[in-house]
Amino acid sequence: MIDATFAKSYFEKNRDAVLKSYYELVRIPTVGAQPIHLGDCARAAAWLKQFLKPLGFEVELITPSTEPPVPVVFAERKAKPRPGHSPKTVLFYGHYDVQPPDPLELWETPPFEPTLKEDGRVYARGAQDDKGQFFSFLCGLKALVESGAELPNFKLLLEGEEENGSMGLFSLLPELTPRLHADVLLVCDTAAAPNGQPAIVAGLRGVQHYTIELKGADYDLHSGAHGGIAPNPAQGIAELVASLHNPDGSIAVEGFNDCVCPPTEREIEEAKRGEITDEEYEKTTGVPPVGGERALLPVDRKCFRATIEVNGIHSGYGGEGSKTIIPSRAFAKISARLVPDQSPQHVFDAVKAHVEKHCPAGMTVEITEVHLGASGFRLPLDSPIFWIAKEELEKLDSKGPVFIWEGASIPIVSELRHRSGGAPLLVGFGSEKDKIHSPNESFSLDQFVRSMTWATLILQALAE
Amino acid sequence: MIDATFAKSYFEKNRDAVLKSYYELVRIPTVGAQPIHLGDCARAAAWLKQFLKPLGFEVELITPSTEPPVPVVFAERKAKPRPGHSPKTVLFYGHYDVQPPDPLELWETPPFEPTLKEDGRVYARGAQDDKGQFFSFLCGLKALVESGAELPNFKLLLEGEEENGSMGLFSLLPELTPRLHADVLLVCDTAAAPNGQPAIVAGLRGVQHYTIELKGADYDLHSGAHGGIAPNPAQGIAELVASLHNPDGSIAVEGFNDCVCPPTEREIEEAKRGEITDEEYEKTTGVPPVGGERALLPVDRKCFRATIEVNGIHSGYGGEGSKTIIPSRAFAKISARLVPDQSPQHVFDAVKAHVEKHCPAGMTVEITEVHLGASGFRLPLDSPIFWIAKEELEKLDSKGPVFIWEGASIPIVSELRHRSGGAPLLVGFGSEKDKIHSPNESFSLDQFVRSMTWATLILQALAE
Repeated sequence: MIDATFAKSYFEKNRDAVLKSYYELVRIPTVGAQPIHLGDCARAAAWLKQFLKPLGFEVELITPSTEPPVPVVFAERKAKPRPGHSPKTVLFYGHYDVQPPDPLELWETPPFEPTLKEDGRVYARGAQDDKGQFFSFLCGLKALVESGAELPNFKLLLEGEEENGSMGLFSLLPELTPRLHADVLLVCDTAAAPNGQPAIVAGLRGVQHYTIELKGADYDLHSGAHGGIAPNPAQGIAELVASLHNPDGSIAVEGFNDCVCPPTEREIEEAKRGEITDEEYEKTTGVPPVGGERALLPVDRKCFRATIEVNGIHSGYGGEGSKTIIPSRAFAKISARLVPDQSPQHVFDAVKAHVEKHCPAGMTVEITEVHLGASGFRLPLDSPIFWIAKEELEKLDSKGPVFIWEGASIPIVSELRHRSGGAPLLVGFGSEKDKIHSPNESFSLDQFVRSMTWATLILQALAE
Repeated sequence: MIDATFAKSYFEKNRDAVLKSYYELVRIPTVGAQPIHLGDCARAAAWLKQFLKPLGFEVELITPSTEPPVPVVFAERKAKPRPGHSPKTVLFYGHYDVQPPDPLELWETPPFEPTLKEDGRVYARGAQDDKGQFFSFLCGLKALVESGAELPNFKLLLEGEEENGSMGLFSLLPELTPRLHADVLLVCDTAAAPNGQPAIVAGLRGVQHYTIELKGADYDLHSGAHGGIAPNPAQGIAELVASLHNPDGSIAVEGFNDCVCPPTEREIEEAKRGEITDEEYEKTTGVPPVGGERALLPVDRKCFRATIEVNGIHSGYGGEGSKTIIPSRAFAKISARLVPDQSPQHVFDAVKAHVEKHCPAGMTVEITEVHLGASGFRLPLDSPIFWIAKEELEKLDSKGPVFIWEGASIPIVSELRHRSGGAPLLVGFGSEKDKIHSPNESFSLDQFVRSMTWATLILQALAE
């Protein structure tokens, strides 16, 4: 009998072997967005193949023809035939790429050397997002396989470009679609509710990103000889970026919010259940939740509204002391979070038109590194898969789950949902403490075991 | 008889020796603003001492008690006593420090390996500003000394922190003042007129600089999970920097332009004489002169108005691809050019009050690396030293000189003027082509020889 304690005992008995594999995977610096790490991504894909084969998977590494050609792992494990039983099919999606680790100087331990500290957390880039999350799920699956338990048909899709727009996987979808059919689309790349309860994701925002490049003089000018006459791209990029928002925090880009559909009352009520107070938010992050459209509730802003975020802005001198120049170049890295019904192309066109219209005098602007991305989605709250998930999550945690609408994005999920026909079930065990995308990312062994436990429970339920 | 051809023949005869010394000096990476280069500054000071001693100078290297303690070279060479003749005293000021060479990847030759190309220009950081300019002047002096010609009393002050606010020299001035008395304050750190005519500087702007630092969350946040709720320092620094100017390009900081005194009609007329057209400006720099206060003439904006310039702005991710974060920190490197009668403290207080008032919600702002600097100056156009200089410059160039009001600053000059009592005479041979403060800085041998020639002519005139 596989119950909620099974995964924990398995982990305790096999702790060294489980952590050895986990650390091996995390040690590979799979920064999918940086071509220099292409070889590392290929190594990680090969490693995963070796891990999966003994579990009864047929594994294929598929190389897309996009640049860089980061391999996709596609694996399939068939349920044992049982008379009178038609097994369900699960499509599990995860990503083995990670965010760049920089700024390196802020890491307390090397980003690609997983380090278990006394607080019970493993520190490394990718310790959580998403290697830690999907790998702990696969460890739960491994425990089931070794116990001889029944499993559903299990299809596994692990890509290496989630953090950079999933270009390769998007390009492979047309040829992959016939093999993706599933009843349930499982993802373990999201967080528990801010208050700590397990969470079922009822919505995700989409994301798109690009670089705004501003060009001034042919070379850096002396700021004394040219100050007051030459146009200044460092000042220009500031003006351009500032022009994207109104003083009340709302988005100033004409047409950006077309098709943004407000949440229902029930959605707002459900979303509030897992939330923390503004004071708790500030205690965790160090800042009050005063970004974005200040006229709206924080939960509305995070879950149901589109945003434009400045991920980086750079121009001119940044070292010690001073360098009195008018820089010749400037750029800003921008991402936008999209809600359902917002067309990525329409939104991008609106930003592009805004940027061109507001290009400061004497300079030229260009938008490069464009990833159009995908729109977000919101799921009906009465989906049958949610009832199954609720029941299993109550075994994991007596408080039971809440619904959350993640502000974050997994660009490919919306597309996989349509192509597989599977009902999306996104349950993850992330926490704000994990500091994903930030230096000193970590994942606690407690979270790891909860994720394993969830895998054993839901796979059992879906095997019936 | 020392005439306008003397320096040129000397250079041709001694070309290898002159260039050898020039290259040795330029090869030392004297980035005075960066403590890591303190040793290089000390090496350069020692090198200068060795160069000056054989010319009859008493040389002293004075170490200030400021941090980093970049040495100041003070040297003195007395005129030979002549019966019935009371020699004039010249105080010559220059700086052996240079701007940081970065961005390194834009250099076509190594920044500290002087390279003479076929265009007759020597490429290196400091090839012009100010090593090339003051050293060519000293080569002219050397030629005179070797010829046995009479010289005035000559005091030499070479510092290594001009590009970073001259802190060390400022701190030494109280003790040095009794030794600085002079009739003329000579400086060779400025440019010829934009149209190429020799130029006498009738005014300089002052400069101050600082870093605006903005702090948000305790760590970089995931821009999906926090987009729309967390305050964003990358966006905040853009808004803060953009708030410094009005849409018409004028400065929006309350109190900043108090005491800015408009030029006289004669000053505007004189300033226009050496100017180039807007088209020529664009041809040289790649941008039209549309920065700053668009309601005013470019020549007015550059010569007689104060400015705030953004020398750098940095926050968050700047690499390839994307990193979807809300950065936790941002900063902007700011400099302000000041005109006479503007108190540096008053101006700084105005900027500080503005920045604090406009600090975006949820973030904290701090101003660091503050260098108050000095105000600018404007000289009376009928100063007797200008008549002497004009006469000598007509020998150098038949078109004769024009007056210019440099937009750039030499912070210490205003102070040295008052402490020495000397009439300022700033004549330099820089050109926009030299790209000082920028990658691929250079100085042509033609400029070098013109500067040597100027040295021989003016020192002869002042020896009489």
